Amino acid sequence: MTHFTAEDISALGRIERLTLINSVTGYKPANLVGTASENGKTNLAIISSVVHMGSDPPLIGFFMRPMVTERHTMENILATGCFTINHVHHQIAEKAHFTSADFPREVSEFDRCALTSEFLEGFHAPFVAESKIKIGLELADKLDISLNKTMLVIGKITHLFFAPEVLEQDYHLNLNAAGTICVSGLDTYHSVDVLARYPYARPENTPEF
Amino acid sequence: MTHFTAEDISALGRIERLTLINSVTGYKPANLVGTASENGKTNLAIISSVVHMGSDPPLIGFFMRPMVTERHTMENILATGCFTINHVHHQIAEKAHFTSADFPREVSEFDRCALTSEFLEGFHAPFVAESKIKIGLELADKLDISLNKTMLVIGKITHLFFAPEVLEQDYHLNLNAAGTICVSGLDTYHSVDVLARYPYARPENTPEF
Repeated sequence: MTHFTAEDISALGRIERLTLINSVTGYKPANLVGTASENGKTNLAIISSVVHMGSDPPLIGFFMRPMVTERHTMENILATGCFTINHVHHQIAEKAHFTSADFPREVSEFDRCALTSEFLEGFHAPFVAESKIKIGLELADKLDISLNKTMLVIGKITHLFFAPEVLEQDYHLNLNAAGTICVSGLDTYHSVDVLARYPYARPENTPEF
Repeated sequence: MTHFTAEDISALGRIERLTLINSVTGYKPANLVGTASENGKTNLAIISSVVHMGSDPPLIGFFMRPMVTERHTMENILATGCFTINHVHHQIAEKAHFTSADFPREVSEFDRCALTSEFLEGFHAPFVAESKIKIGLELADKLDISLNKTMLVIGKITHLFFAPEVLEQDYHLNLNAAGTICVSGLDTYHSVDVLARYPYARPENTPEF
């Protein structure tokens, strides 16, 4: 086994460290966060830190760095109190990736990256028409992470849209049917296949391994 | 598109809501969190909420619910200030899944689920010998999430171990080479293939879509 200590990691160049540490947590979900300013200027950003925080109430979080490319998203969320999360699928992977470029404020990533903004049910933030699973959220809280000056943005689900074929009988969403992909590191996108599904784990149904 | 409002989600049965909302964020990393009590009793728990929080310092977070099955892990982290995160790969998927059963405190999931505890570099928390990517972390902070009484546990990486063939030249970790898998919903495990890798996105190298 190769072994890196904290000191070894700290001694890496910035890009090498970013690349390595973005890889170590495993596969990450590929999502597009859609927002609009108060006067309706849209913004779209790919983000890999979306995480399920709880089901009742239904809460989803993501981490926001205090950096230029993400500032438009955060400004819009603070100004309007809402955002959308939209799954990235095979056909839009490259377009989704390039939303991370640091475009000037007057450029909407929807236009530049040829993705279609869609306004549903009077919700202020734009959804991505191409996505097969999309979520509308209201800002529920934001927590400052003092250790590294990032912020945990917490949204409460107010709308959930998905292609009908994605819903299974037990309310599991079949992400393969939605074409949803995942990410590793900073730039590598992955297709996904079902390996196995196991029953709810209880001591009495645990196999003798 | 099928449309669920917040009220529709709230009206679901508990299990249906858990199943649905655990699916909506996309693919999640499959990791085993290893801990030990002060007197060395080991504990192992699969967890799907591990998230990259930053690279300098290298910080990783995960969410802990105030529930029985996870309390042993949290008690150990608070008592000893450290834990490990170990990737789940194809060959250990079923064993890893069943660590989530609510075993009595005297049962170590390492023993019951036939996974091998491994102590490296004098680190107090056990690593999973079978994993090809494993991380030792010290507890850096914990944040109470008042909205749902969960907790964000934040660890700083102090040790990183991986099989040599996993490291690429640019410090990206090849998760396919490590056999790492991902999870959707509560119980579905997925194998992963590389779809595409794209260059760092800048306005000037963004294709005309």
